Amino acid sequence: MEKLFASIVTIGDELLIGQVIDTNSAFIGQELNKIGVTVKAKHAIGDEWKDIWNTLNEASKESSIVLITGGLGPTADDITKPLLCEYFGGKMILHQPTLEWVTYLFEEIFKRPMIERNRKQAEVPDCCTVLKNEKGTAPGMMFEKDGKLFFSMPGVPSEMKNLMIQVLQIIQQKFKTPAIEHRTLLTMGLGESFLAEHIKNFEENLPPNVKLAYLPNYGLVRLRLTGHGENKTQLVQQLDDLFQVLKSQLNHVLVADEDIPIEAAIGKVLLEKKKTMCTAESCTGGYIAHKLTEIPGSSQYYFGTIVSYDNSIKQNVLKVKQETLEKFGAVSEETAKEMAVNALKLMSTDYCVAVSGIMGPTGGTVEKPVGLVWIAATSKEGKIETKQFNFRFERRRNIEMTATNALNFLRKFIIEN
Amino acid sequence: MEKLFASIVTIGDELLIGQVIDTNSAFIGQELNKIGVTVKAKHAIGDEWKDIWNTLNEASKESSIVLITGGLGPTADDITKPLLCEYFGGKMILHQPTLEWVTYLFEEIFKRPMIERNRKQAEVPDCCTVLKNEKGTAPGMMFEKDGKLFFSMPGVPSEMKNLMIQVLQIIQQKFKTPAIEHRTLLTMGLGESFLAEHIKNFEENLPPNVKLAYLPNYGLVRLRLTGHGENKTQLVQQLDDLFQVLKSQLNHVLVADEDIPIEAAIGKVLLEKKKTMCTAESCTGGYIAHKLTEIPGSSQYYFGTIVSYDNSIKQNVLKVKQETLEKFGAVSEETAKEMAVNALKLMSTDYCVAVSGIMGPTGGTVEKPVGLVWIAATSKEGKIETKQFNFRFERRRNIEMTATNALNFLRKFIIEN
Repeated sequence: MEKLFASIVTIGDELLIGQVIDTNSAFIGQELNKIGVTVKAKHAIGDEWKDIWNTLNEASKESSIVLITGGLGPTADDITKPLLCEYFGGKMILHQPTLEWVTYLFEEIFKRPMIERNRKQAEVPDCCTVLKNEKGTAPGMMFEKDGKLFFSMPGVPSEMKNLMIQVLQIIQQKFKTPAIEHRTLLTMGLGESFLAEHIKNFEENLPPNVKLAYLPNYGLVRLRLTGHGENKTQLVQQLDDLFQVLKSQLNHVLVADEDIPIEAAIGKVLLEKKKTMCTAESCTGGYIAHKLTEIPGSSQYYFGTIVSYDNSIKQNVLKVKQETLEKFGAVSEETAKEMAVNALKLMSTDYCVAVSGIMGPTGGTVEKPVGLVWIAATSKEGKIETKQFNFRFERRRNIEMTATNALNFLRKFIIEN
Repeated sequence: MEKLFASIVTIGDELLIGQVIDTNSAFIGQELNKIGVTVKAKHAIGDEWKDIWNTLNEASKESSIVLITGGLGPTADDITKPLLCEYFGGKMILHQPTLEWVTYLFEEIFKRPMIERNRKQAEVPDCCTVLKNEKGTAPGMMFEKDGKLFFSMPGVPSEMKNLMIQVLQIIQQKFKTPAIEHRTLLTMGLGESFLAEHIKNFEENLPPNVKLAYLPNYGLVRLRLTGHGENKTQLVQQLDDLFQVLKSQLNHVLVADEDIPIEAAIGKVLLEKKKTMCTAESCTGGYIAHKLTEIPGSSQYYFGTIVSYDNSIKQNVLKVKQETLEKFGAVSEETAKEMAVNALKLMSTDYCVAVSGIMGPTGGTVEKPVGLVWIAATSKEGKIETKQFNFRFERRRNIEMTATNALNFLRKFIIEN
């Protein structure tokens, strides 16, 4: 079966000058992929009439489906709606159901007076099918031209995500989509090139309909198998078989055999063992807690953290001995140990991991350079393990590396203890 | 002066299927902007020979500068280097200085044996200028064709960022860049359409070389003035004057008169007043602490947090009375107050903000629905203020909205107290 291609067009100067990071098109890519649509390209352009026009031409040449986000707000810099009206040869009309919806939102939900700009949100080209925006005032729109489908959605992520439910349904009604399957392995401990060397034979012998990709991310490497086929059942079987082989070859560095972040992987281990954990953070400033609590349901196993960003908190709340801080310093094996042991006691969990390090750009010395991190894991039974890391990267990257390594260190500690 | 345009091309299937969010092109956009280069478009494409080739053609048609990231790794799915070699009509040669650099990295820094794949990183097309990658093994490359410049950089953010220093220098040597100026105002309290209505007159009377953009983000709205011109001094003066007018019209919702996040805005207030703060978080799970500590130097005013994700931590560490929890519940004005007051005492700071809420998707009830949040701010002098919020969004958005509103609530509390 021929692949069904989609192109994503994101509109807004803020994307080009980098004031906003585009997370929308990643979400759209994921969702399209799940229903067997291959994203051919993503194009980001500014609020310029000619650029938008040309990009729509290009996108419809390369793909059967074009998804557009952004440029639908109530302000003067948003030109997408009049442009789409002209592009598809329509004229603007007031869409009564949308007007009623916008009015309802202002009267009942926002409880604010509606102004002319808001009313304008209900105007749409007469050549489009309106897709109701359950999460906001700017309606989604669908256009058809020469057998190709165009969808226009607002750039606000929650509104776009909700509209995508309708968009995906329409795509599946209008096109026959091929089978597509992914299998993802999360590994930690081997760099990309060493992984590649280790599974060289496996990779070279992959069938032509299956691709292997390496996705390194802060010390972790995701390995993703992607297969295309006509017969879903056969494809699932083929991918499952290949995935088993891959897993068995990488068992020593395996973190998870599904596409989940490491904070979810540790959660699964805790849920299985019916155990709980807490953290004691210094240099990561709450980032480990944030990652853990991003996972819905994490309250079942994650109790909390004490972030001792200032040393006084290490002493006064975490009860690290003044002597330890004076003799070994805040970034030391001894301090990390006391942080872990005392935090576990304070929060009464089964496990605890503590981190103390220097993230940069300043704060490093010759003996303790930027990137030095001590991690300590402990259990209610009193077992304790520590590890030193030397990251030598930038602040942002050091924080990520510390969090990822702390979570993996504790994950292994839990499995072994 | 004519605008100088650049196009950004990012290569990798992981971007198209949404497994990785592209932060590189936002960074590149920001940096180009600072030196007066306008980003015309960004294109993301997969590891497909024909797509990369066609996109290079397109990008060089629309822009004088093409920046390419990704596809330079040591694994088989990376095809960018051989493609560039053919595209620019060269042949692959071993680049001795790069080989020496890669060898040094493996021997002295990574302390791992080097394998053939790593050695291959030192091969480059003979028609390129090699840009040394100080942060990794894959070299940057520059190509010139028909008066246009092409730069190829690895996709690893730290490596790309470091290479961009050289890239920007070369662009400034090879092209005369126009003056470009931005002024950004951070506001909170008025939605996009109400802001637009409020400054309608100002916006309509902007000179043709100045644009105004609205950038809403979790309850905050950034207003950005962008001006182009030939004379830098005149442009600076023009933008400064317009910015003064804009500021005076929006004084009542002003958070900061520069492009900084709210966590930096609160830091500035604390530094000015020489005061310190801490936090007590429940539903945000450490996210507020993380945001605050992302700012380098935040240890001067931010001491730490206690995240009481489980109610036992509210009782045992934050000493919230059992009676309060039983009578009013964890998500209540009373609990938030006790959290703030007790955390401030435990951590001995001048100010504290506490949050307790229900982020969803589960955990809501009829009386306390998902999105309900209580925020309490307190000072060492014993002043205390609380506020209830009802966000009704998704989990991720609720966490963001809670953090942003808590920081702004405390910021205003600090200014007034």
